[in-house]
Amino acid sequence: MTKRDYVVRQMAKTNKKNYENYVVTRLYHRINRDDIKFITQQYVNKPEGYALTDMYFPQLTLHIEIDEPFHEKQQFHDINRETDIIQATSHDILRIKISDDLPEINQQIDEVVNMILKRIEKSEVTGIWEPWDLDKEFNPEYYREKGYLDVSEQPAFRRIVDACNCLGQQYKAVQQAWFKSKIYPGHYLWFPKFYENEDWDNRISNDGKVIIERCKNPDHYEAWFNSIISDIAKRITFPRSIDNLGFRLYKFAGIFETDTEASSFEHGIVYRQTQDRLEIKAGNEDYSRTRQRRD
Amino acid sequence: MTKRDYVVRQMAKTNKKNYENYVVTRLYHRINRDDIKFITQQYVNKPEGYALTDMYFPQLTLHIEIDEPFHEKQQFHDINRETDIIQATSHDILRIKISDDLPEINQQIDEVVNMILKRIEKSEVTGIWEPWDLDKEFNPEYYREKGYLDVSEQPAFRRIVDACNCLGQQYKAVQQAWFKSKIYPGHYLWFPKFYENEDWDNRISNDGKVIIERCKNPDHYEAWFNSIISDIAKRITFPRSIDNLGFRLYKFAGIFETDTEASSFEHGIVYRQTQDRLEIKAGNEDYSRTRQRRD
Repeated sequence: MTKRDYVVRQMAKTNKKNYENYVVTRLYHRINRDDIKFITQQYVNKPEGYALTDMYFPQLTLHIEIDEPFHEKQQFHDINRETDIIQATSHDILRIKISDDLPEINQQIDEVVNMILKRIEKSEVTGIWEPWDLDKEFNPEYYREKGYLDVSEQPAFRRIVDACNCLGQQYKAVQQAWFKSKIYPGHYLWFPKFYENEDWDNRISNDGKVIIERCKNPDHYEAWFNSIISDIAKRITFPRSIDNLGFRLYKFAGIFETDTEASSFEHGIVYRQTQDRLEIKAGNEDYSRTRQRRD
Repeated sequence: MTKRDYVVRQMAKTNKKNYENYVVTRLYHRINRDDIKFITQQYVNKPEGYALTDMYFPQLTLHIEIDEPFHEKQQFHDINRETDIIQATSHDILRIKISDDLPEINQQIDEVVNMILKRIEKSEVTGIWEPWDLDKEFNPEYYREKGYLDVSEQPAFRRIVDACNCLGQQYKAVQQAWFKSKIYPGHYLWFPKFYENEDWDNRISNDGKVIIERCKNPDHYEAWFNSIISDIAKRITFPRSIDNLGFRLYKFAGIFETDTEASSFEHGIVYRQTQDRLEIKAGNEDYSRTRQRRD
């Protein structure tokens, strides 16, 4: 995807929501930087529950909420267990109120624009600004160079093979969702699905820190349960999700370990996040020659 | 309607047309003046036939066309005999090409923005800039103060009664479409409909200068034809149309007179535009006390 297609598609999500379209396009066009990323209609997890923010600037961990008069916030009819949800507890939220008066609306937007431009400028001065770069996003090499995955930065990959190779597996293609790590002793790479399917009924908590796994096949259930309950493997976990443009995402969720006390034969296995950061080991020196296809 | 509602509705017409939405919103937000009016998807009459321009700035008689790759120009399925069509023969048309490269698209848009801002500035310096003012549009008093109606400026009213009172009729409400002028001797005010209905099948030429009128009632046809063919009345004409937001419009089309040679019993009466400008006479001095309701 090009930046053009990305930006236009994000704006298109505000179609039929006319005030949103006005505010989102004015914010974007007046910020007027092609190195800023934005996401419209992003699901977020806040202490009071799920919500949808109208515009999200991930580089600034800043959300914009548009308050429309007489506007019932939409029902979350399209949320499902695969919807990509962002942990937004430490993020900033700014509100823009749609009044009757266009200059008044514009003034609020322009204040937000100025604030954003100042924040970017400050980040540039202090050297922490990371320009939006489509080639880096979802790119295993980029994270290998960076040297770590941290849940707070929401690193993600488009394909299981990319996440695997970021962590030194050196695969060409994969057909599974569970791998013994070649680099981290005692660790596995895990790509769980959270939509209910024929074999599994898995769930993840709102804050992304607890996973419950349940095998649905009664013939295998007991064997599965017994093999896992004593499992001391550390699970480097990338839950599968679908982002707001409909693309698949494997977002790093941390390292999970079995919580044997919380697990039960009746309800399934409970895994708990024990680390939210993973240093990326250099691994095989030949790795850098194996370039990944970029989505 | 407020400016907020007007602007948001015009932008909303570009919904589902994602590149159009991007270009139109960027142009508007970067021009960043609330005294500029724009119309999206305006039907225009050009020498080569009808067309739809993507964005039209009436104060500057400037149109923007957005050239999308592989984009078939839409069929004019919603055009009918009432669609408001602008005579654009002397207007400027600028094109913005949607390439793959977002900065390249932005650069083209920004050049147009700068050109527009310079034109406005020049108009301001020379005193001919007329800021977009919703209270003036369609307001009979505004045109009375201005002192004339000129087809090239596309003066229009929302209601027949407003056009009547602009020309000194002093009505409170009207139920008809044909009035003897109280101010202009030998003149009538005429508000023809161009959609085919039970009684009439009227047509107007593409350039707006020729009208053909046909009574559809066979019992009345001969009497009607004979009374009109010898008609020497001058018709101050406001064809009824529907603008691109779906509102009714009576736009001044000039003064029309019967063309007896071109008329025929078989095809109907032909009227031809003989003047495209009408000086507004002061009329009754009490007029100014009768304020019109503003739509």
